[in-house]
Amino acid sequence: MISRASKITIIGLGLLGGSYAKGFFNAGYKVTGIDINPDTIEYAKRMHWITEGGSDPSLAEGSDIVISALYPMTFVNWIKENQHYLKPGSILSDVTGIKRKVIDEINEVLNPEIEFIACHPMAGREYKGIAYADCNQFEQANFIIVPTEKNSERAIQTAYDIAKVLKFRNISELTPDQHDNIIGFVSQLCHVIAISLMNISDNPKLVDYTGDSFRDLTRIANINEDLWPELFICNKDNLVKEVDDLVNQMNYLKQQIIDENVDEMKRLMVQATARRKKFGKR
Amino acid sequence: MISRASKITIIGLGLLGGSYAKGFFNAGYKVTGIDINPDTIEYAKRMHWITEGGSDPSLAEGSDIVISALYPMTFVNWIKENQHYLKPGSILSDVTGIKRKVIDEINEVLNPEIEFIACHPMAGREYKGIAYADCNQFEQANFIIVPTEKNSERAIQTAYDIAKVLKFRNISELTPDQHDNIIGFVSQLCHVIAISLMNISDNPKLVDYTGDSFRDLTRIANINEDLWPELFICNKDNLVKEVDDLVNQMNYLKQQIIDENVDEMKRLMVQATARRKKFGKR
Repeated sequence: MISRASKITIIGLGLLGGSYAKGFFNAGYKVTGIDINPDTIEYAKRMHWITEGGSDPSLAEGSDIVISALYPMTFVNWIKENQHYLKPGSILSDVTGIKRKVIDEINEVLNPEIEFIACHPMAGREYKGIAYADCNQFEQANFIIVPTEKNSERAIQTAYDIAKVLKFRNISELTPDQHDNIIGFVSQLCHVIAISLMNISDNPKLVDYTGDSFRDLTRIANINEDLWPELFICNKDNLVKEVDDLVNQMNYLKQQIIDENVDEMKRLMVQATARRKKFGKR
Repeated sequence: MISRASKITIIGLGLLGGSYAKGFFNAGYKVTGIDINPDTIEYAKRMHWITEGGSDPSLAEGSDIVISALYPMTFVNWIKENQHYLKPGSILSDVTGIKRKVIDEINEVLNPEIEFIACHPMAGREYKGIAYADCNQFEQANFIIVPTEKNSERAIQTAYDIAKVLKFRNISELTPDQHDNIIGFVSQLCHVIAISLMNISDNPKLVDYTGDSFRDLTRIANINEDLWPELFICNKDNLVKEVDDLVNQMNYLKQQIIDENVDEMKRLMVQATARRKKFGKR
């Protein structure tokens, strides 16, 4: 387990970084916070989630564990500009939703005395900012560790420890290729659908005619437009394929409707129902 | 308001019919239940949601209000075979999710001394059967009345009264064309998406890598395969157009991702976010 004497620094106290700080604080750790927004730092201090903090990157000096909750390419730039503050032997981790590009770019620039272990907590929300920070959601959420052949056992273990301290429900390991492939499907494709559904109709009365289905399928259409174009572009190859796969599936079902092929529709529905049962009630 | 001395009969005590019976019982009404399954009748009696019931259609005799919660074409067949039990001057209503075909077929066969007023409570669930009956959900749900030029004020008022007794959140009126068009979008298209998403991948480990997005978008993939092919086929023209519209929207967004057109992606996301806000938190 991570020693409570460790210096833990979180860079970027938004929704996820703030939730991490809160989770570490609740588990009895001291956290240093770095954020460009002084109001965010003040909020985190007032809540006692961080013991020290500010916008100065030198606050990361002497840290044993540094976790970035910045947007992917902002994180890469932060390393380029500020990694001289990081202690040799320290572990650097992240929360970004795409991995191949982040890992490649970081491994290209990172001082080899510092080890980066990529992590993806599947606990994003359709809101942004520290005011929405909530570490209780982690107890229902998956945590994916994305090691490469460059990673030591110690760094991978630290990633497990982070997930355990924050009480994630389930911890898995995937390769960077597997991660970006699966996330293109279970997360990014779903966001493409939700955005597209909301952009089809500008009927302002729609809210009076909807059931839960439409509300469920569009919850994540409330999306952070500063983050997601970057996530989509960094995973372009997978995401384009996923959109094409879904379009093919939908067109196939459409054809069964046109042909009034009830048997094949039933087969598709029975298969969908059986597979969905594994995911639990919601 | 509906008099508590009225005889109210509900045909088909599944998820929705059972919830209706429970709702009327809670509001102090006496309900007669008709269902082909004796276990369902016994359950409804044991819960006191119905005062009398059985499988015999003659139980509907003397009813002031008859509400069918049968599948659309089963309902039409029920009328053909059993409408001689219905009292002249009585009101007949339904809960089916498609309207043009149901209204057309019923108006073709129904004794003109009985008046049919079409209703669509937007309160389906991804489960079936009376054991899932729950009238509390109506307080969050929309209720759509679908009158035609044949309907009297008295019948339309009875539909409003049903919705009010059952405590629906919001009551609207739509024409049959408007109804099927909007429902093709907000309900049926969402079900096509959920089914298609679940049928893309048979990876049994997916559950360990998902966040809430995928769970939200596939909740309704747990679908009643006996009901939905009929709903899809009865609204084929609208649904095919909705699938095509969504495919076009998704392909447009895909092209912006391929072109790395961040500005246009942001515009689409900002528009989606603004529209989604009207639908509230969930």
